[in-house]
Amino acid sequence: MDKKLDPSFTHVVYFWLNNPDKVEDRTAFEQSLRKFLSVSKYAKTKFIGVPAGTPRGVVDGSFTYSLILSFSSKEEQDLYQKEDAHLKFIEESEHLWKKVVVYDSVGIKKT
Amino acid sequence: MDKKLDPSFTHVVYFWLNNPDKVEDRTAFEQSLRKFLSVSKYAKTKFIGVPAGTPRGVVDGSFTYSLILSFSSKEEQDLYQKEDAHLKFIEESEHLWKKVVVYDSVGIKKT
Repeated sequence: MDKKLDPSFTHVVYFWLNNPDKVEDRTAFEQSLRKFLSVSKYAKTKFIGVPAGTPRGVVDGSFTYSLILSFSSKEEQDLYQKEDAHLKFIEESEHLWKKVVVYDSVGIKKT
Repeated sequence: MDKKLDPSFTHVVYFWLNNPDKVEDRTAFEQSLRKFLSVSKYAKTKFIGVPAGTPRGVVDGSFTYSLILSFSSKEEQDLYQKEDAHLKFIEESEHLWKKVVVYDSVGIKKT
């Protein structure tokens, strides 16, 4: 994994699978996502996670997978959205999830 | 900013301020958050962002600030939650926000 989090742009995605307890679905999702990220020209950082089981009131631990990517610019993220490998991942795996929430942020400089 | 995203544990927080357009509130929030992060013994990565303005259906761009931190373990994040500097930041700034959502993830190994 590229550990450097680019401070310019972060793209964070939460996936809720239809069958979060089905091992075949999880394996298919993880393999499809990793295959895509291994060839993406634009994505950096590439953190894939699952809920940490931190039971506090403000914590939403209902998702099945989290994905944290960073980009060197908004333009690179726009290009990533249209990348063939990205479109293929969605086509291949979208039947596995029922909900996706995305948070895109640009980093702020010191005030 | 420490750019290394520790693959062990990520702690992502979205803040919705009461007055997102009020410059004084934004400045107070940013200064309080930065002061806290500069002395935290446990937090790594320390990305602070604002919505990127990516207008797609699955994107939630309604938050005021995002915070992405990483930790070398779940235990370190537990210690961070109880850190004096963290409790002080909450005490100092919680009147500025109306909603906070947290997503905690542990990184997964290759399948």
